[in-house]
Amino acid sequence: MLMKSSTQSLTEQLATRFAERIRNRLMAPGARLPSVRQCALQHDVSPSTVVAAYDQLLAQGLVEARKNRGFFVRESAPERADQATQTGLEPGQAGIAAANWNTAHWMAMRGPGPNAPPVNATALIRGMFHKISNKPQPGMGVFPPEWLESTFMPAAVRKVTGTRALQDFSLQYGEPLGDGGLRRVLAKKLASLNVLTAPEHIITTVGATHALDIVSRTLLRAGDPVMVEEPGWAVEFARLSALGMHILPVPRRADGPDLEVMAKYCEVHKPKLYVSVSVFHNPTGYCLSPGSAHRVLQLANQHDFHIVEDDTYSHIAPEHATRLSALDGLQRTIYVSGFAKILAPNWRIGFLAAPPALVEPLLDTKLLATLTTPALLEKALALCIEQGQLRRHAERIRTRLDAARARSVKLALAAGCRFAAEPTGLFGWVDTGVDTDVLAQRMLDEGYLLAPGALFHAARAPSTLMRINFATTQDAAFWRVFSRLVAQH
Amino acid sequence: MLMKSSTQSLTEQLATRFAERIRNRLMAPGARLPSVRQCALQHDVSPSTVVAAYDQLLAQGLVEARKNRGFFVRESAPERADQATQTGLEPGQAGIAAANWNTAHWMAMRGPGPNAPPVNATALIRGMFHKISNKPQPGMGVFPPEWLESTFMPAAVRKVTGTRALQDFSLQYGEPLGDGGLRRVLAKKLASLNVLTAPEHIITTVGATHALDIVSRTLLRAGDPVMVEEPGWAVEFARLSALGMHILPVPRRADGPDLEVMAKYCEVHKPKLYVSVSVFHNPTGYCLSPGSAHRVLQLANQHDFHIVEDDTYSHIAPEHATRLSALDGLQRTIYVSGFAKILAPNWRIGFLAAPPALVEPLLDTKLLATLTTPALLEKALALCIEQGQLRRHAERIRTRLDAARARSVKLALAAGCRFAAEPTGLFGWVDTGVDTDVLAQRMLDEGYLLAPGALFHAARAPSTLMRINFATTQDAAFWRVFSRLVAQH
Repeated sequence: MLMKSSTQSLTEQLATRFAERIRNRLMAPGARLPSVRQCALQHDVSPSTVVAAYDQLLAQGLVEARKNRGFFVRESAPERADQATQTGLEPGQAGIAAANWNTAHWMAMRGPGPNAPPVNATALIRGMFHKISNKPQPGMGVFPPEWLESTFMPAAVRKVTGTRALQDFSLQYGEPLGDGGLRRVLAKKLASLNVLTAPEHIITTVGATHALDIVSRTLLRAGDPVMVEEPGWAVEFARLSALGMHILPVPRRADGPDLEVMAKYCEVHKPKLYVSVSVFHNPTGYCLSPGSAHRVLQLANQHDFHIVEDDTYSHIAPEHATRLSALDGLQRTIYVSGFAKILAPNWRIGFLAAPPALVEPLLDTKLLATLTTPALLEKALALCIEQGQLRRHAERIRTRLDAARARSVKLALAAGCRFAAEPTGLFGWVDTGVDTDVLAQRMLDEGYLLAPGALFHAARAPSTLMRINFATTQDAAFWRVFSRLVAQH
Repeated sequence: MLMKSSTQSLTEQLATRFAERIRNRLMAPGARLPSVRQCALQHDVSPSTVVAAYDQLLAQGLVEARKNRGFFVRESAPERADQATQTGLEPGQAGIAAANWNTAHWMAMRGPGPNAPPVNATALIRGMFHKISNKPQPGMGVFPPEWLESTFMPAAVRKVTGTRALQDFSLQYGEPLGDGGLRRVLAKKLASLNVLTAPEHIITTVGATHALDIVSRTLLRAGDPVMVEEPGWAVEFARLSALGMHILPVPRRADGPDLEVMAKYCEVHKPKLYVSVSVFHNPTGYCLSPGSAHRVLQLANQHDFHIVEDDTYSHIAPEHATRLSALDGLQRTIYVSGFAKILAPNWRIGFLAAPPALVEPLLDTKLLATLTTPALLEKALALCIEQGQLRRHAERIRTRLDAARARSVKLALAAGCRFAAEPTGLFGWVDTGVDTDVLAQRMLDEGYLLAPGALFHAARAPSTLMRINFATTQDAAFWRVFSRLVAQH
């Protein structure tokens, strides 16, 4: 809220707020600023204050005025404008570029319109890092740091950082596949999920993100068709788009992907890869049914494509959940997971388990991209898993999440929301009844980062849905602000 | 050497040796095994022993016999055969694919011939990790681990791993650009090299390799022309090739790149990027002259391309050496370096300093590829630099390297080698007078991994040159074996 008592004038406060949001990419290049009248109403200031603030932004080169259309965030990185044409989109899906890192140039080409998305994929990723406010952030993809606190993690680090040990593994590149001890522990852990593999078919990576990146780079070349679930994780759309892939969005249903759409894609486009979150799908929380899993694998065999199964949420999911990798025996499936969600986001430890014939090409991609990965953290993680501490920690977090979810669901329903999918896992997929792109921008003024539904769609179609993190939406304060803004809509 | 006294028969010993080499990619798929007669002579066994060993390899599916042509290492990953056509090579440069991770398929397409390279780029990267023997490895790209030992490194790690501190930075994703403290220290360090930048224009990465990868992925799209120095580092050829780039090799002279060739490329191909090692160029050790640097930058301005300057060897180079980034003021130049060579290869800490307008797109690529990087090691590194310990450590290593180089040069000259470039820095670029591809394979039998000259050429042309690491070639034992094998050639 703007404060009259501040040492800054209201104009300066307003200009500073927009400037920060533009610099932090929480307003995308090409996005339209609210009209002077709207903005004055929203912030309870006079129109002349708004005009003065917009003038400051103009002078700073952050926005530009367009005749009779208002103020727009300026494009900023002209170097790549020519590349916006190379994103390899299906006709009619040009909007996917909005989920692209290259948004600025897509916008430049297309010309920003009233639908210019105010929060794009990059903004959401940035939101994971920028401290928007001290409030719990409903749009976040991870647990709040205090949920992850433990004593066993620092103890494990201390154990592996004795002078001699540290020198032993720091002064050479280390194992290309990743720390051998960790890979042995991971193979055992995967066996408990019925995913049968061997340490030599596991490759450690810089988080699950890096594993997904390695898989795309190894199996696909620019222009290749790839099936991705929709709704789905914006960063995956953005990555594939940046790599120039031809994205084929597959509707995700409660029991699995829409198999008819998949079959049709297979016939028309011959996709090489299907990217899937089987368990606690992001953003819906859906879990794959055994029947659907079987039919997906049949399709994969029939049409000869690979599957990368992103099991990022495995730590909070039941062991017996249906996983393609388990059914398939890692024949055409590559299993990917990581520890950002359950142990330490900054450690950046992920891994993949691959069919034997793919291990070498995947490893080559890892080596060309980063050479090895830091053994120190991998060794500490291995200790945490081996001693059972991580499992007990995950159990505690699951219990805490169950309670948080129960509270969040009640509050969401009371605020007039409807759950588009049965609430489970970390995320709720919520219908707010209003355009969540617009709502997200308003909520930012109140210090909350939302994850609007359009983010999870390849074509960035406006949506009344949003993804909430149950761990950060159990406080009534958020829902009060939410209800107030929805009512004003 | 094969041992009659071993518990294994000579046949088994020979088969095991080839099998290991094939599995470790020290013999590339498609490479021809020595003829039975050659192999029998080399190993001082009977031809029937060799035939029996080759039969075992056949039975294991590791090699295949081709009528009247002999035995060849089998291709192993048929999934990607169709992609070998997409490497975007200049006509007549098809050989560059031999430096590609995709060698198997290039070989499959081209058909292995008598020139099938026995040691490829991937093999050399793998060689960095596989323990070939306990002997010092002349083909290695780094200092031996014992040269890097220090007490300050473990002390720095202990300082940043207190329970509270560790939790503070581990339990959130961390700063997208990388640890702020490290970036401040790096900006200061760069100022001493006359490379003027600010912490907010620095991005930390998973080693210099990752920095170079991020730059290529951000500035180039598949098929884009890119200029790379030749001779040059094989991994760079391999990475760009795997990304589908159109590689334009620029001859590297003692004072800099061949400017006439560059100018011609600019007119014909309009390259977007020039990849260069200005100081202690790998493999020649050449340093860029000020005049040449100025003309390169003029060309870049005239033809509107970016330059990525890989300063991996900065720690052992004089501060006053000419760097493009210093002259250019980071306008079109992206500076890249890392700490694998001087502190800890396994820590995987590298960084780039970029023109302000490129920071955001480069950061987006980092986020899509790995999200953040681990802060623990970055914080420890910042301490090592800040307290001056790394600088003193580097001075000690430089002194030790000077002595090792003096010894190595004497031994190399005595072994009949000629230096193709003035010996300086870490690497010597040595003319042996014999085909170093063949020599490398023979030296492997003796437990030495060489870096043959063909590896450093885009077209993999057979060469009598090889790169030696002065730190690991100062022992007479290596040169005795070398002389013996050269004499037998």
